[in-house]
Amino acid sequence: MATNEAPDIVVGRLPIYLRALTIMAEEGQEITSSQELSKKLGISSAQIRKDLSHFGEFGKQGTGYEIAYLRDQLKRILHVERTWPVALVGYGDLGTALANYAGFAPKGFEIVAVFDSAQDKVGQQIAGKEVLDLTEFPAVVRERDIKVAIVAVPSSAAQEVAGILVESGIKAILNYAPINISVPAEVQVQYIDPAAHLQHMTYYLE
Amino acid sequence: MATNEAPDIVVGRLPIYLRALTIMAEEGQEITSSQELSKKLGISSAQIRKDLSHFGEFGKQGTGYEIAYLRDQLKRILHVERTWPVALVGYGDLGTALANYAGFAPKGFEIVAVFDSAQDKVGQQIAGKEVLDLTEFPAVVRERDIKVAIVAVPSSAAQEVAGILVESGIKAILNYAPINISVPAEVQVQYIDPAAHLQHMTYYLE
Repeated sequence: MATNEAPDIVVGRLPIYLRALTIMAEEGQEITSSQELSKKLGISSAQIRKDLSHFGEFGKQGTGYEIAYLRDQLKRILHVERTWPVALVGYGDLGTALANYAGFAPKGFEIVAVFDSAQDKVGQQIAGKEVLDLTEFPAVVRERDIKVAIVAVPSSAAQEVAGILVESGIKAILNYAPINISVPAEVQVQYIDPAAHLQHMTYYLE
Repeated sequence: MATNEAPDIVVGRLPIYLRALTIMAEEGQEITSSQELSKKLGISSAQIRKDLSHFGEFGKQGTGYEIAYLRDQLKRILHVERTWPVALVGYGDLGTALANYAGFAPKGFEIVAVFDSAQDKVGQQIAGKEVLDLTEFPAVVRERDIKVAIVAVPSSAAQEVAGILVESGIKAILNYAPINISVPAEVQVQYIDPAAHLQHMTYYLE
């Protein structure tokens, strides 16, 4: 049922649906509707139904969506019914916060290796892992079959780090540095841009 | 020309357009098109034109968009032609990283006050500011007319902190804690959810 034709912008909404469904399931709710999801998420119910229709027939006319079923289907579609090992580059304040972040495990990700190029950081322990020298990145990524990496280095180093990641076979990069990085088309990049979220909200403020 | 009728999901794309236009302007480019923006952003050109049409007539048939003009209009629409003072709550690793983050100032935000409830943190200096006791939050927010706050506290404290923020008159909250917080309808909340960005990318991975 799943196709590769869904626009990227639709794919980007699936994690938002998955988050809402996961919370509802944890609260013991069994059935929802596109109308209820719409109210929770600020996305029109027509849009939600259209988005989901790219991937299959999940709702039943008149009864809505089975939450646990739709949640599991979205996990499958997003490939997070498994846990992805993740490499983290940058052991500064942000890297430390990310290594300790509790939000990855429930969503299918585990930071398994932390890298930095500063020799005074290499060898330190963080969240049960040793900080490794960035020169070890290619070998570790190959050995542990890591495809996903997080970049938490200063802007001035982000492009060079991205190059090392790509050469090592990383296929998905989450970039916290406030600059655009250039990678080959087959490598996914997403940006954490807190200022964009703030701008979204100031639209509504006087 | 601006209306309040634009769907929230459209508003959420304006910062993405603004980011792209800002980069293009910095690179010296003067004119762009919905087609070029589409290629850069992975959003269809029809969608981009439709999104922008909610706010006015920015493009000229056959000549595209004047980058600097459209950038300035989007800044005006998002209310970031000014700089918003921002309160940061939570002076842990993440809070430290945010206080030092270089990405806020160019986008219309300045962290002017940092708060924590841990007495060993209160009084420390970060990025030229003193860490204040959370009990001082209401007075400082009133005095400095702060409407925007960032929550970088553990999940267990996030809801309580959100309550203090709302009571103090904060109207927009950026929440880094991996839990949903409950606030009155007139208060905006956005979430930083790095796992959602990772899920977006693993959709494309085998």
